[in-house]
Amino acid sequence: MDLTSFLTSLGTSFAIFVILMFLFAWLSRKPGNTVIYYPNRILRGLDPWEGGSKTRNPFAWIKEALTSTEQEVISMSGVDTAVYFVFLSTVLGILVLSSLILLPVLLPVAATDVGDKLSINATSNGTFSDLNKLSMGHLQEKSHRLWAFLIGVYWVSFVTYFLLWKAYKHVSSLRANALMSPHVKPEQFAILVRDIPAAPAGQHRKEQVDSYFKTVYPDTFYRSLVVTNNKEVNKIWEKLEKYKKKLARAESIYAASKNTGNAEGKRPTNKTGFLGLCGNKVDSIDYYTEKINELIPKLETEQKATLREKQENAALVFFTNRVTAASAAQTLHAQIVDTWTVTEAPEPRQVLWPNLKIKFFQRQVRQYVVYIFVALTVVFYMIPIAFISAFTTLDNLKKLLPFLKPVVNRTAIKTVLEAFLPQIALIIFLALLPKFLFFLSKAEGIPSQSHAIRAASGKYFYFTIFNVFLGVTIGGTLFSTLKTIEKDPNSIVTLLATSLPGNATYFLTFVALKFFVGYGLELSRIVPLIIFHIKRKYLCKTEAELKAAWLPSDLGYGTRVPGDMLIITIVLCYSVIAPLIVPFGVLYFGIGWLVLRNQQALKVYVPAYESYGRMWPHMHVRILASLILYQVTMFGYFGVKKFVFAPFIIILPILSLLFGFICRKKFYRGFQDTAVEVAAHELKELPNMEQIYRAFIPLSLGSEKIDDDQFEDAQSHVSRAGSFA
Amino acid sequence: MDLTSFLTSLGTSFAIFVILMFLFAWLSRKPGNTVIYYPNRILRGLDPWEGGSKTRNPFAWIKEALTSTEQEVISMSGVDTAVYFVFLSTVLGILVLSSLILLPVLLPVAATDVGDKLSINATSNGTFSDLNKLSMGHLQEKSHRLWAFLIGVYWVSFVTYFLLWKAYKHVSSLRANALMSPHVKPEQFAILVRDIPAAPAGQHRKEQVDSYFKTVYPDTFYRSLVVTNNKEVNKIWEKLEKYKKKLARAESIYAASKNTGNAEGKRPTNKTGFLGLCGNKVDSIDYYTEKINELIPKLETEQKATLREKQENAALVFFTNRVTAASAAQTLHAQIVDTWTVTEAPEPRQVLWPNLKIKFFQRQVRQYVVYIFVALTVVFYMIPIAFISAFTTLDNLKKLLPFLKPVVNRTAIKTVLEAFLPQIALIIFLALLPKFLFFLSKAEGIPSQSHAIRAASGKYFYFTIFNVFLGVTIGGTLFSTLKTIEKDPNSIVTLLATSLPGNATYFLTFVALKFFVGYGLELSRIVPLIIFHIKRKYLCKTEAELKAAWLPSDLGYGTRVPGDMLIITIVLCYSVIAPLIVPFGVLYFGIGWLVLRNQQALKVYVPAYESYGRMWPHMHVRILASLILYQVTMFGYFGVKKFVFAPFIIILPILSLLFGFICRKKFYRGFQDTAVEVAAHELKELPNMEQIYRAFIPLSLGSEKIDDDQFEDAQSHVSRAGSFA
Repeated sequence: MDLTSFLTSLGTSFAIFVILMFLFAWLSRKPGNTVIYYPNRILRGLDPWEGGSKTRNPFAWIKEALTSTEQEVISMSGVDTAVYFVFLSTVLGILVLSSLILLPVLLPVAATDVGDKLSINATSNGTFSDLNKLSMGHLQEKSHRLWAFLIGVYWVSFVTYFLLWKAYKHVSSLRANALMSPHVKPEQFAILVRDIPAAPAGQHRKEQVDSYFKTVYPDTFYRSLVVTNNKEVNKIWEKLEKYKKKLARAESIYAASKNTGNAEGKRPTNKTGFLGLCGNKVDSIDYYTEKINELIPKLETEQKATLREKQENAALVFFTNRVTAASAAQTLHAQIVDTWTVTEAPEPRQVLWPNLKIKFFQRQVRQYVVYIFVALTVVFYMIPIAFISAFTTLDNLKKLLPFLKPVVNRTAIKTVLEAFLPQIALIIFLALLPKFLFFLSKAEGIPSQSHAIRAASGKYFYFTIFNVFLGVTIGGTLFSTLKTIEKDPNSIVTLLATSLPGNATYFLTFVALKFFVGYGLELSRIVPLIIFHIKRKYLCKTEAELKAAWLPSDLGYGTRVPGDMLIITIVLCYSVIAPLIVPFGVLYFGIGWLVLRNQQALKVYVPAYESYGRMWPHMHVRILASLILYQVTMFGYFGVKKFVFAPFIIILPILSLLFGFICRKKFYRGFQDTAVEVAAHELKELPNMEQIYRAFIPLSLGSEKIDDDQFEDAQSHVSRAGSFA
Repeated sequence: MDLTSFLTSLGTSFAIFVILMFLFAWLSRKPGNTVIYYPNRILRGLDPWEGGSKTRNPFAWIKEALTSTEQEVISMSGVDTAVYFVFLSTVLGILVLSSLILLPVLLPVAATDVGDKLSINATSNGTFSDLNKLSMGHLQEKSHRLWAFLIGVYWVSFVTYFLLWKAYKHVSSLRANALMSPHVKPEQFAILVRDIPAAPAGQHRKEQVDSYFKTVYPDTFYRSLVVTNNKEVNKIWEKLEKYKKKLARAESIYAASKNTGNAEGKRPTNKTGFLGLCGNKVDSIDYYTEKINELIPKLETEQKATLREKQENAALVFFTNRVTAASAAQTLHAQIVDTWTVTEAPEPRQVLWPNLKIKFFQRQVRQYVVYIFVALTVVFYMIPIAFISAFTTLDNLKKLLPFLKPVVNRTAIKTVLEAFLPQIALIIFLALLPKFLFFLSKAEGIPSQSHAIRAASGKYFYFTIFNVFLGVTIGGTLFSTLKTIEKDPNSIVTLLATSLPGNATYFLTFVALKFFVGYGLELSRIVPLIIFHIKRKYLCKTEAELKAAWLPSDLGYGTRVPGDMLIITIVLCYSVIAPLIVPFGVLYFGIGWLVLRNQQALKVYVPAYESYGRMWPHMHVRILASLILYQVTMFGYFGVKKFVFAPFIIILPILSLLFGFICRKKFYRGFQDTAVEVAAHELKELPNMEQIYRAFIPLSLGSEKIDDDQFEDAQSHVSRAGSFA
């Protein structure tokens, strides 16, 4: 790629970004769009803008983002979002501090060298670009100028250590502050108990759990909630909710028809068969009312049956203070370790109920099976893609789906399909991957959503690094030089090192495209806006439906963080080889910080859960992993340049491992468990235990119609006579 | 070694054993020897024999040992000893069950084969023995009879899994029962807190600790005991104790002289100089009384200074109930993990006070340094020995210690010295090794004696397996075939496999010698008896000195277990190759069980500490390690025999690893921590907290002369106004 085409691509991306930004400035001022651009504020009952919508400066959001404090972010979107911004600003800091040395020193050093004949020769056939002059590839072999680059590697590494250390300390205190908050949070008063052994004969599960914990914690035990198998009751409840929604919709259509047409209105009808397309035509309001009246007693019966007969081997146990709960969650309860296992209770909204009953060793087995499966996916992901590609050729499609034949045989369609089918298959596979990884992580038996998302995010990270970064870099050269690797496995580092410079401009363009177009789309929210307006116009009939149409998703850690990680890895690995990439990295994280801070943290996204910054250690360790990859690559690249002092680099990966070890020892357990000194802080008010307990009752069981007596079976107080076996 | 010489050696060992056993039967009946043969019973205030000494059957001890229950062992010598017997009987069970199949099946299968030409040729030059006919080495290559041996390997493995599983369960319940004992044990009410950060300005360490724990545990915190640097005060206290003993001795000599000689008696005198050999002659009683009077106020001053000024960054914290203490010891206290680290408190008698102040990361560094050092010692232990040998040649000695010259130059002495100096050096080195390893383990910063002993025992185990077993087996063949290994590292398994059969009779003799002579000496206690009688006759003047002369040591886990482990490894590895070794193993562990049960567990040894069976997981994992070594060796040996079904063996090491993993997951944490369900059992009486607290005050600080006011500084209640920072 020569300089002109690079600049063209850059210019196009930038133009798109500017257009999208103006679009945002214009669209976000229209009052009808506030639910798309300020949903988080609206949900919290705040005024979308603080000033008036008309007088507002179109770039006011930039000022608002820059002046917002961390406390504001925490109060608007929680600790997890604040931690994500610590992550962004730490990376930004690393890149800015790195560029302060790398740009003014390395660029002149490289540009003024006479040039490496080899690289000139290799690239002189028309594609040689001026950009290469500014990279380490331009230097002569064994040049003493390489010292500057070696020092550059050290500088980047130490800047990273320093800022990561500061960030870890900061995030640790953020977490502590959130956990010692004087506000009552239900999950801080509960623990999750799994692997409860079979109840002794003549004792109910409920009695067993209560008497066990009452013996151990006579003063602080409040009550327990035995987990039940809610599959059936959920099914009925969801059906009921669906009919309720449909009834509301039918009533609203009826009311609207009264206003517009005749005074009597037109009662809406629907068909009872498959998807409302066939079957008898019935009056919707009557039909749904009848269905609802049918389901309500059914739900009640099922609720009772569930509470009484479908108790499982897990329970939530509530304590009257935070210290006991925090301490109990970390303490071994039974002499045989695979019974009565305890963990901190997840937030009520993120409990993965069906996972709770999975037994100790089954969880272990599931975990290892998933790990092996993911490792195979990461390494051999080309195989399913190749399989899909082969499967989706036109000839195969014609064979399998013969009714497509007349369509496919038209020349124009045929050409397009032939060109795009494999790519579409790849895109679909890659788009499904995060969901697939999340599904796999849930299958491990993890009890909370945030934990499953962290696990999926880790898997996705390894996937992207392995396949996108290493794949693109080494990919092309790999197959032609496979024999070299077979002879000497160490050459993989050399291979990576030699492949890197050639791909520098490719990744430069990639990063630029990603932040200009990606963040442009993010900021303008064009897609959600269009979908919302279509839905509002043609589909939504009730208030609830309208709200569902604009309700924002959450920040989407699971895929966002691995995406950022890929950029970090790319920028770090090229930082010394082609320092010109660093400003692009700075732009990516700078614009990302700004756009996400304003739009997403403060105004748009609503977090789906709060894990009190538990994602941070994973981010930390992955930045470190990128750094180690970079250091190892640089060691290889100095070797390629035949620089005799290359071994000086070996110290760095060792230092990185040591740094990671120290950080893990010093901070990690503080993220796994709640420190009691933190939990011991005083609360603002006396906790309302009944409310805390009710927060954990699943919606499908929580109907007000069920009175307390019926809860006795699985959830409420047990008689004080419980004895300990 | 041919059959005759083997039988001779066996016969001699057996004869020695019989003689020693009769010696024991005769000596133990003499009333003057009861303190040597029944010290544990005497210390507990029990009658040495239940019957009369004269009418007693000389073999009554065998009956007593066989009829004694586990509960008796626990009450006499504690859980650790009982666990040691579980270990012995588990191994005994494994060997007995193995031999039930191996002996009647494998011996005939081997003996009736036509024989392996190769092995006949190799051993036909005079040393061929009939014993080899009974071993697997006698079989022809590729023989189908090898199937029987392969099944034998499976049988031994599954017997081991089964009995280890049962034993782990049993030991786990032993530990639980001991921990839930209704008797008050001070260590169950305390936790050890280390890495306390610097106290804020204007606050004493004591206040800091008290206010910290009072905030977290407002209801159950009792008081704290800040660890002080007792080096100085210990020195003075030991001096004082020494003088007190000497005074008692002088007084007793004086009293004795009154009875025997003139009525006035003869006042004993001593010299004040070096070792009492030079200096002024003084009256002993006056001199020691004066010294004691000098030291008492000095001790008191130092005690006050220590409590006030020498407080360190560690403390023992006491709680009013066991559940809180057990739970607190497992709970993260500070958000920053390397401060306020907590562990269970060790028993008062086994606290390693000087280690408590060592900081978190220093402990990590020390641990890794020690590990590396031990690994080097294990691998390169020949080097220091060679160095010592070289250093202790006569010529070197003469140069370094010229005054020895006239002695050394005499021919007779010279010959003896030249022959034995290297061996003596080796013996000294090996004898010092356990002490050296214990010293290294203490240097890791471990807070309790039992933990340090476990750590030393592990190191000793690796040392013996690596050097004695692998050394002897491979040693000879290794150097001649070093080139083969360099070419192909896998051949080390083959090498081990080929070396094994040749050494079978060597190890047979070794095991026989070890149990006949070793346990004979153990039973008869000849050495302690002689030493005691010499001391009583010539040295002891007071009651205290006499008691010190017969006071037994403890069981000596640290070296005993690795010794037994070596035997297990040998017997297991040869069990299928030469099944004849199994009965010897059975004898070793059978006689061992009998001798140790009677003599040591019930009547002689007094345990120095109680760790509630924490040694067991280590024993378990090491038996499993021996089993894996055996399985890998057998895989190699089947390969040597060119048996095409040898790969069937590969499943076994994998199974063993899986078994170890499951056991670890299911039981291990129950040995690391105290389960709260166990700690929650009711106590017989209300604990006397003052007594519990006083149990941890070091002797040198615990003089009754110090009244409670002076303890305020480092040990007692703080004012209730303590606030939490």
